[in-house]
Amino acid sequence: MNLAEQIRDIVDFPKKGIVFKDITTLMARPEALREAVDALCAPFRDQRIDKIACMESRGFIFGAPMAIELGAGMVPLRKPGKLPAETVSASYELEYGTDSLEMHVDAVSEGETVLIVDDLLATGGTASAAIELVETRGGIVEALVFLVELAFLDGRAKLGDRMVHSVIRYGEE
Amino acid sequence: MNLAEQIRDIVDFPKKGIVFKDITTLMARPEALREAVDALCAPFRDQRIDKIACMESRGFIFGAPMAIELGAGMVPLRKPGKLPAETVSASYELEYGTDSLEMHVDAVSEGETVLIVDDLLATGGTASAAIELVETRGGIVEALVFLVELAFLDGRAKLGDRMVHSVIRYGEE
Repeated sequence: MNLAEQIRDIVDFPKKGIVFKDITTLMARPEALREAVDALCAPFRDQRIDKIACMESRGFIFGAPMAIELGAGMVPLRKPGKLPAETVSASYELEYGTDSLEMHVDAVSEGETVLIVDDLLATGGTASAAIELVETRGGIVEALVFLVELAFLDGRAKLGDRMVHSVIRYGEE
Repeated sequence: MNLAEQIRDIVDFPKKGIVFKDITTLMARPEALREAVDALCAPFRDQRIDKIACMESRGFIFGAPMAIELGAGMVPLRKPGKLPAETVSASYELEYGTDSLEMHVDAVSEGETVLIVDDLLATGGTASAAIELVETRGGIVEALVFLVELAFLDGRAKLGDRMVHSVIRYGEE
């Protein structure tokens, strides 16, 4: 199946001039959802992965099935104030201002291997905050994994030399 | 495994006097996460389920693996303004004021069988809004499925005579 064909473009969302990649049409088709999760997991099947750390809230949609598929635990990375126990926090730049992401301090232990998972790699801001959270607690980021990569925004530049695995890529040179 | 033992209590979150059931400790353990999804799916394995409709954002954590496990599509029910295409909306009561939930109009078709999935059944407000969204589009709500039910809040009273399946129940008479 061509997974890219399962995604629809929504013009001018969330604001004028932006073409939003709507993945809900992919999610609604059982075979497409299954194939997307398989493709996300593929490079890691023979590796020990302890934790899948994934971003609220679309990251949860792919992170949870990946955790089950790979026999890993799932760690939610959330907006400020959502996680109930003690957290660490990392901030990242937005177009105007900054935002931040939180993780429970006991969610990742020293030496654990971690995949960071989200639906989309755009400018890489959220992903680099996620790296900071995992590494602050001694976790080892094995790779960053995305269903969709907007390659023309060059988010990879913010992720150092870490492995990036994306299933659908738009706008490559 | 006793899944209830994998959940931790956080006292006074999100505000004084409330004991929050923190499921992140369950999610962090691969065997517990796997067993939770198995238990959520158990009653529906021999049934045709077309769609899993699940609430942002913790509902995604269980709804996505259930969709894959049961061979269904996944439909996200989101806070206002998050879904990019045309939506239907249903509002529900909060302690003070109201909130609402949205679903894409084309996410559920006439006659499709649907499970509504969330992490928690409390007062049942969100769940009854979810029922309204699915039924407005002609979907058939086969059951409402929750990892945790706070039975002392009697959320079931808002869900009519529909089947409710919850894996962990607190405060039963």
